[in-house]
Parts: sequence; structure tokens; C-alpha cells
Amino acid sequence: MFVRKEFKAFCRMFKPKTAYILWQHAQMDRYGREVYMPSYKAPVDDTMFILRDVLNFERYDNLSGFSDAPLDMIEAILGESAKFCEGVLTPINRIGDMEGCKRHPDNSVSTPDSFKSAYQTYVQGGWNGLTTDPDYGGQGLPYTLGAVVNEFMSSANMAWAMYPGLTLGAIAALQTHASPDIKRIYLPKMIEGTWTGTMNLTEPHCGTDLGLLKTKAVPEADGSYAITGQKIFISAGEHDLTENIIHLVLARIEGAPSGTKGISLFVVPKMMINSDGSLGARNPVTCGSIEHKMGIHGNSTCVMNYDGAIGWLVGEANRGLNAMFVMMNEARLGVGIQGLAQSEVAYQNAVAYAKDRLQGRALTGAASPEKPADPIIVHPDVRRTLLSIKAFNEAARALVLWTALKSDIAHRSEDVAERQAADDLLGLMTPVIKGVLTDMGFDNTVKAQQMFGGHGYVAEWGMEQFVRDARIAQIYEGANGIQALDLVGRKLGRDGGRAIMSFFGEVSGFIKEHEATDTMSAHVLPLKKSLDHLQQATMWFMQNGLSKPDNAAAGSYDFMHCFGLVAMGYMWALQAKVANDKLKAGANGATDNMNSKLMTARFFMERVLPETAAHLQRITAGADTVMAMPADMF
Amino acid sequence: MFVRKEFKAFCRMFKPKTAYILWQHAQMDRYGREVYMPSYKAPVDDTMFILRDVLNFERYDNLSGFSDAPLDMIEAILGESAKFCEGVLTPINRIGDMEGCKRHPDNSVSTPDSFKSAYQTYVQGGWNGLTTDPDYGGQGLPYTLGAVVNEFMSSANMAWAMYPGLTLGAIAALQTHASPDIKRIYLPKMIEGTWTGTMNLTEPHCGTDLGLLKTKAVPEADGSYAITGQKIFISAGEHDLTENIIHLVLARIEGAPSGTKGISLFVVPKMMINSDGSLGARNPVTCGSIEHKMGIHGNSTCVMNYDGAIGWLVGEANRGLNAMFVMMNEARLGVGIQGLAQSEVAYQNAVAYAKDRLQGRALTGAASPEKPADPIIVHPDVRRTLLSIKAFNEAARALVLWTALKSDIAHRSEDVAERQAADDLLGLMTPVIKGVLTDMGFDNTVKAQQMFGGHGYVAEWGMEQFVRDARIAQIYEGANGIQALDLVGRKLGRDGGRAIMSFFGEVSGFIKEHEATDTMSAHVLPLKKSLDHLQQATMWFMQNGLSKPDNAAAGSYDFMHCFGLVAMGYMWALQAKVANDKLKAGANGATDNMNSKLMTARFFMERVLPETAAHLQRITAGADTVMAMPADMF
Repeated sequence: MFVRKEFKAFCRMFKPKTAYILWQHAQMDRYGREVYMPSYKAPVDDTMFILRDVLNFERYDNLSGFSDAPLDMIEAILGESAKFCEGVLTPINRIGDMEGCKRHPDNSVSTPDSFKSAYQTYVQGGWNGLTTDPDYGGQGLPYTLGAVVNEFMSSANMAWAMYPGLTLGAIAALQTHASPDIKRIYLPKMIEGTWTGTMNLTEPHCGTDLGLLKTKAVPEADGSYAITGQKIFISAGEHDLTENIIHLVLARIEGAPSGTKGISLFVVPKMMINSDGSLGARNPVTCGSIEHKMGIHGNSTCVMNYDGAIGWLVGEANRGLNAMFVMMNEARLGVGIQGLAQSEVAYQNAVAYAKDRLQGRALTGAASPEKPADPIIVHPDVRRTLLSIKAFNEAARALVLWTALKSDIAHRSEDVAERQAADDLLGLMTPVIKGVLTDMGFDNTVKAQQMFGGHGYVAEWGMEQFVRDARIAQIYEGANGIQALDLVGRKLGRDGGRAIMSFFGEVSGFIKEHEATDTMSAHVLPLKKSLDHLQQATMWFMQNGLSKPDNAAAGSYDFMHCFGLVAMGYMWALQAKVANDKLKAGANGATDNMNSKLMTARFFMERVLPETAAHLQRITAGADTVMAMPADMF
Repeated sequence: MFVRKEFKAFCRMFKPKTAYILWQHAQMDRYGREVYMPSYKAPVDDTMFILRDVLNFERYDNLSGFSDAPLDMIEAILGESAKFCEGVLTPINRIGDMEGCKRHPDNSVSTPDSFKSAYQTYVQGGWNGLTTDPDYGGQGLPYTLGAVVNEFMSSANMAWAMYPGLTLGAIAALQTHASPDIKRIYLPKMIEGTWTGTMNLTEPHCGTDLGLLKTKAVPEADGSYAITGQKIFISAGEHDLTENIIHLVLARIEGAPSGTKGISLFVVPKMMINSDGSLGARNPVTCGSIEHKMGIHGNSTCVMNYDGAIGWLVGEANRGLNAMFVMMNEARLGVGIQGLAQSEVAYQNAVAYAKDRLQGRALTGAASPEKPADPIIVHPDVRRTLLSIKAFNEAARALVLWTALKSDIAHRSEDVAERQAADDLLGLMTPVIKGVLTDMGFDNTVKAQQMFGGHGYVAEWGMEQFVRDARIAQIYEGANGIQALDLVGRKLGRDGGRAIMSFFGEVSGFIKEHEATDTMSAHVLPLKKSLDHLQQATMWFMQNGLSKPDNAAAGSYDFMHCFGLVAMGYMWALQAKVANDKLKAGANGATDNMNSKLMTARFFMERVLPETAAHLQRITAGADTVMAMPADMF
């Protein structure tokens, strides 16, 4: 937060025009108040608690890359990441929103003031290579660490964080499916961050149903393809951060089958690359316009026109969706993290406001009699609201890291069975994290905004930006309804339900072990009840969804949220266990933190988790009522 | 909805600059698709069904003003209102959002293109006087009719509808509390719409806690007062629609007690009024700046500076809050209606899109095999989402009209006991309508936006504007947390719980009468269960909230929503009863509508109402966990 004179100094950091916009737009002192700007402090301590104490991260040092990052080094890296996020990215978050991106008559696009210099700082810090393949210049550290850094950056500046975020997704797809030649040409530059990446799927008439896509690829004599078509909603499609942009594009090779079985993946550079690695001619792929969006204004979301642009096949012909799924799965986890990230930063600002804003008196008598009124954090409904966000944030963070660790195990373990078990849970949890964390994360930004009353609705306090930015995460990378269908229609029954049985086994094992313990029963018994709801729902789908798929689809959204609540409940039970153990052992100066964990866990069990009963009831209502009404009667 | 060439013609209606902005902003044809703009069709039929068949409106023709408006006349008036809303207000809704209001160096404010001409059409149509006192030029028709017109206008253009909406609230306050002289001077012009009104409560440091307000009033020799201070978030505070603006302002007379007991209400005209009724000098009350808001850009939300502005006392000195409550209560119902209104218009557009957008195939086999894909309305999760909005809209509309009718009875009945009984229920339901209808209305705009995928996030389709506009309704006129406290802390226990006992009696009477009927049990039994939850929650408050008010406050928000669900469930049961009766009697060509009512009622009972169980569980969890955590540990 900035007080007024600091704010003046802050404005001077920017180009005169930006400073003017910022100053004028904010009109910071017109109420004669001290001035606030949204602030952010990266939750390094909570992250370390989860990694060290809840997930026992050190146990995994047999995985490649893990021994290079013992916990004290991870803590140091996160400290550096926190500095970058708090000091460089947070201050330009509102500027990005206010200025947005601009497209120029030559089809070039400029990003908001200071976005480029922040990106240069990021690249110089080596952040882009953190978790990528050492063979191409990466540092090969755990993906779990990357997930944390992603959370921090997305809290500090979601629109900015999308530029490197997409690059990492594109790297993952190329790493898995591209030929050695393509890898050699593109990966080193993308890993160092000199070039960014994009994913081009959506067309005007299709997003979810990619089988309809029309962009075509015509084989050329030299083995390349000429790509022609229009893609929309392309995040970071054109910008001024880097000298080159590498597009991963879905298109149909001339003569290929219709539907999803005729789609191939291509790599299409903005600037052609000469054989010596230098940049060559401009490829005819251009930004036709910038979308006018509700939020994430700092990210250039483009209509991209491919007019015979030269591209190369990635992976097998007609197997493009398969290759793109590598990028999409990674992106889906990243989007779920965005939901958590916006919830976290909105929460931090709401807490600060609730401690500062004086309004009314505590029902039990004045808490601050020397002041004209009490800070609003004394009011039960304000506390209820804030606790519901906090209880989500700390469970969601644990769930993200639990799942990210599965990803590391799935990719890095030398034990086949261990890899498969981890991959099962990763696949199962990916739609849950994408769908539930973005829905609840968005709701939390709305709740946090509500704490500000009218001040939350005006731009100056920055709270409404969090709401507008968070909203996209429910939509892109597969709208949340699609995540629910992926979970229920694909992940649940795969391999005879192996993944969900493994999850049920893990959670019920924990419950059995701890339900009789005095200090744990208040946390474990509600979880037991909700796990039972989830198991009943799963059983109901098996009995009623196979013969009539509408029954499964009509209950899919509720099932996804029921699953998310149980998974978060399990994360709280795990955290409560650690907190109890630490308090018993003396807590080492962290008594407050451990008590906070126990109280927040209890709040989650009492007020958030019971919602699973309503989900079960809706699921077992079945599809009849939902399907009965003729379309004309809506 | 407009196709492309109609859109060009549409653009030509506006000033060249506006047309250019509109055209350029929309870039309607860049995807080569037909072009859509949000559309709106006022739900006249559903409203008439509720008035005629559910509420038996004709029974009330003993109330003053009601016999002037038999149902066929009401239907004709609503038809005219629909034309105005659909033809004049809807087309300028997005323009209002894009252009916003502009403040000029002379402190004047201009509204968006065509807002003024729409206002003139409204005034010429005599709409502003519809329900106001005939002694001052009004038509004296039922308030219930005004509530319907308010819904239509708020769906069509919420930002625009706020200008006349605030005038009507100011008229109500003056009507009840002002001296005959003040009424004579202000009411005729305000009722005809020549002057608009505002309400000035909030100051930079206080909104909810008005006891802290600092604006001062110094008595002058002529009986007037000089008002000095700063008010913020003043909707319609300054604009170019009318020649004068009448501000109702809360201020503290010099020497008055501190806190809420020293607040008085003043009427402060922008332009002084000469004794012959003509406009005189400019009063020193000016717009200091326009707020930069998340939405309702078309309404000028102002910082108003009072620099010794001349005002006159309304009602008794130091009893200003009491007088302002007349305006606030009317405004709270109006804000609840805004929640419904945005949900309705968002729903209509989402349904149109869901029938048009082709993506994927029905799970039971292609529904439109001749097309490349099926319209997304075949998918269970899309239907579930749309039905949840529809089930809210039609129940919320019935609840608004049920409550508005109570307001008419409370103000117009000649029977004291009938007046009191109606006033009890009006007071009880006002915070529920404000809090629940705006929360659920906002959530529904988000759900409707979600149906559009990425197209919902870009401005062209207009869906994100509904979300941004609807958001304010949860905040202003008392943030929804305050509504919950009003309900639980003031309305519930008043007069020994007379109001809620009367509500319980009415609903349980209906349940008893119909629970054994075959065609009704599916609708009545779930209501019975949820009413029981609400009664248990009420009982729990009586046993645990009186001795420890934190228990009541911690559960207040859940109680408000539990109450709202039961009230809407009751509205659905009433509608199902009518639909069953009509189908039995032959339905007179309305078979589809009545079947739709029964199916939607069933959906509400199966999938919306069961949430009361979770609310009850949270309420009875009590305040301990909520209050336990020290402020520093948040």
C-alpha cells in the first residue's frame, strides 16, 4: 500500500503520459484520505509449511532435479520470486489494466508501460528456465516449484504472468512431441525467454468443439506447410516483449478427415529463422485486432490471421489434438492456480481494509473505544466472509502443490507403478483444480470486493480489477462445464475407476487412522461424512449414468464441486494433523500459525465442507427434470 | 438482435462520433459472422400470469387507485412500457456503457448519447407520475405496477433507469416528511420528471455507519440552512437530462448531538427556485469528480461538494435518518428488482445463444444431424444452468410483486389490521429481496455469461456488461451483509416476532392444504422440509442469539438466504397450484406455459431449494469459530 507522497514518487517511475493517467485516474487525494494501491505479499511461509511439513517434500529427493533443490534452497528461490513479484509485478498491475494493449496500423501490438522492462528483468533472472529441460538450457527443478512461482506471479499481475505462462505450455508440448530438429531450433530460445509461445485453437465458430475447425495446412515441397485461417482469443498472440513469437497452431491438412481425427499441430514462428539461428523474413501471421475484454487488459488477446504462413508439423499428422493436450493439461493446472492467485491477493487487500476501516461497533461492546468506531474486522459477518476466503486459499494451495508433486512423480520417478499411480491422480485432479479453484477463486474476489462497500466498486482500490481478471479463468482452457464433463465422462471411469479408487483409498485410510484421536476428530469426522457423499455420488453415476449418460452429465458440475470440497477437506485434515503434532512438540515459535491452521480448518469443516450434502442431493435428482423441457419453452 | 446490415442502420441513429465508437468497438464482422447485440423482450405475459392468476390482483379493487387500473388496462400499460424499454432503452444500453458520463471543466456532466432524448420520451409519456400522488399531478396507480415498470426499465438499461428511479425515491421521502410548502414547490416538477432527485448519504469515511457523518448545516436567518461538506457515490448527482436536480442530503445541524441522533435531512436544489417557480441562481453544490466504476457507466456517480449550499429542513431536526429511511426502503426494493432485472435480460440472451451456437452433439445422438453440430441447448449442463436462472427469475418476480402488493395494502387499505399485517411482511421481506435477489441475480449474470464461453468475456456480446452492472446492486443501499443484519437484528424480533410468525403461518397453511394432493406433493413436500429448516434456524437464534448476539450476526447471511429460498419456494408452490388448476380446467391455449411452470417449479424444488439444509447447518455452527481468531492472524 502506498500513502500519498509515496504514490507521487511511484508515479514518477513511469512515462509522463502513464504517470498522468495513473494520477488522474486515481485522483488519490480527492477524499482527503491516505491513498491505497492494492498490495501483495507472496505467501512464502505458508508454501514452505505445505512443502516441508504437509507434503514432506524432502522425501522425494530420489526424483531427478529434486536433489538440486533442497528445502533451504527452495525457500531462497521463493524469497527471490517474492521480491520480483512484490517489487516489479504488483506495482504495474493496475497500470496494465488501465492502459491495456494497443494495436498499431502496421499490425504490431504494444504492451502497457513497464511490461517489457519487467519481462526483461524476469528473463535476466533466469526465471523462465526454472523447471525446464537442462538439455536445452533449463534448470530442471521440480514442476512443483514452478507451480508456486506461477501462483506468486499470477497474484501480483495475472495479465503479465500469462506471457511466460503460455511459453512454458508451448515448451512442454514441443518437448514431448516435436522432432529433434524443431526442439533444437526453438527450445533454447523459448527456455531462456527470448521468444514466447502461444496456443492457437479457437476459431470464430468453434472453441469447445474443435472438430469443426477450418484452418487449413497445405504441404509444400520442402516439407513445410502453408497455414491459412483465422484464430481468435489468442493470448499473447502479438506483443512487443520479445523479438519472436512461436505459435502452436491446430489446422487441418488438405484432404485430412473431418472432425477431430483430421487435426494436426504445427509450429509457426512469427519471424522465420535462418539456418544460423538469426531471424529471417516476417511470416504472414498477423494480429487482425485486439479483443475488447472484461479484464486481463494487460495481456494482448488477439485475432490472428494466417495467410499462407509457413509452419512445420509437430508430432504425427492428424494426431494434433493429442499433442496439444500436453499443453492444455499443463495450462489447465496453471489456470486453476490463477483462481487461487486472485483469491489470495484479493483476500490480502480485504483483510488490510477490514483492519483499517472504522464503521460501527462490535456487538459485544466497543473494541476500540478511543476511536470514533471499531475496525470492521470485529463484525462476525466480515470475519465469516474473510475466513471463508482464507479457508479456501490455504486448502487450494495445498491441493495445487499435492497435485504438482504428482506431476513431478509421474514425469520423473524411475518406478513404473509409482509413475502410473501419480499420473492417475494428476489426470483426475486436473479438471477439479481448473474448475473448482477458478469458480471459488472468482467468488472470493467478489466477496473480498464486497468488504470494501462502494469503495470496492470504484477502480481506485483495485478490487474490481481482481474480479474482472479472475473471471476469465472460469472460461478459458475449457470452460468449467467442460472440465466437469472431462472429470465425469472421461477421468472417472478410466481403467475401471482406478484413479478415483486410489483417491478414496488414500483419504479413507487417513480417516481411519485419525478419527478416534481427540484432537483430530473435529477435523476428520466432517471429512468422513463428505467423503461418504462423494462415494455415494460416484456409485449413483455407476448405477444410473452408464445406461443413461444424461444422468451423468446433468450431475457433472455438482460432482466436480463435491470432489473439490472433499479434496480440500482432505488437505485441511492433513494440515490439522501437522499443526496438532507441532503444537504438541512445542511448535518452535510458530504457535500462532499452527493455531491459525487449526481454527481455519475447523471453519472449513463447519461452514464450507457441508455443502457436499446439497451436491449429492442435486446429483441424485438425475436428468429427467433437466431434459424434459422443450428448447422452445426456455 | 441485429444482423449486420441492421447494425449499420442502427449505428446511423447516433451522433457520428458515437456511431464510430460503436462500430469500431464492436468490429462486428471481423469473424465473418452475423452480428448480435443484446436484446430484451419484456416479460409481460409472465407478469400478467402472476398478477392475475397467482396474486388475484382484481380482488384488491377496494384499494385506492386499484379500481383505476383493471387488469386489461394494466396489460395495456405494460405493453406500452415494453415498447419503450425494448425500442428506446435497450438499444442505448451498451452505448451508455462504452461512452460513460463526462465531467467538463465547468463542473457540468453530460450523459451518453441518446440518454437525454430517451428521458424526454419517458417524461412525455407520463411514465414518471404513474404511481405518485394525484394531488401533485401523479396518476396514483398501484405501486405494484411501478415495480413491474421498474423491472422492465432496469433490464433494458439499468444505468439509465437509475435517473428516474432515484427521483421516485426522493418523491416518496418528501411526500411523507416534507412541509406543505416544500411539497408544493418540488413535488409537481419532480412528479412530471422535469426535475430529478438524488440521495446524499455517504461520505468518504462513512457509508454504513452514518453516525460518523461530518457534513454540517448552519441555520440562516430566513429559516434555511447553509450546507457544507463532501458526499461521495452520489448516483445521478449531476447530469444534463433536466434543468434542475433536487438533492436530499443528510447533514448535522451545528451543535446537534454526535452519532445518528444528530442527523437531519435537507432538500437542496441545484438551481434556486424563485417565488414564481422559475429557476434562479446556481446553488453552490457541484460535482467535484465522477467515480470510475466497474459498471453502470451510463449513470453519473458523483463526488458532490456542498460549499454553503442553501437547503431546507425536511421533517424534524435530528430525525433525518428516520425520514431518509422512507427513501431507503423504497430504494432497497428497487435495488432487489435490479438484481432480478439483470438476471432476466442475461437469461434471455443466454437462451438465444444456446439455441443458436452449434458445438458438440447430444449424448443421446445427434439432435440436428443436418448441421455440423447440435445447438448447445441439447447439453444437460447447459440446460441445468439455464433452468437455474429461469427458476430464479420467475420466483423472484412473483416475490417482488407479492411484496409490492403488501406495500400497496400497507399504504392504501382502510383497514388498520390489514395495513399493519401488510406492513409487517413488507418490512420483513425488504432486506430479503434486496440481499437475496441481488446476490442470486449477480450470480445468474455470471452463469449466463458462462454460456457464451470466450464470447461472453469480450464486450461485443454485451454479457460482461450485465455482470458489471449487476454487481453494484449487492453493494449500494446497504451492502448485503447489512441487509442480513437488518433482517436478523431488527426485523425478526420486532413486536415479538409477529411478522415472521405471520409468514410461517401463511406458508404452513398452504402446505397443509395441499401436501396430500397428488399433483402438488412434489412441489409442497420439499417446501415443507425447507420451511422446517428456516423455522429451526429461527428457533436457534431465539435460543442462542439473544444471550450472545455474535451467534445471530455470524448466521445472519445464511439466514437471509435460507429465508429467500423458502420465500421463492413458496412462490413456486403458488404458481404450481395455479398451473395445475389451469391444466385441469383446459388451460385455454396456455398449456405450454403451464407445463413450463410445472417443470420449472420442479427443478427449483429438486436443485435450488435443498440448499436450505446447508444454511441451517452453518447457522447452528454458531459464532465461536468465527470469533476465535485474533485479527492479526487473518
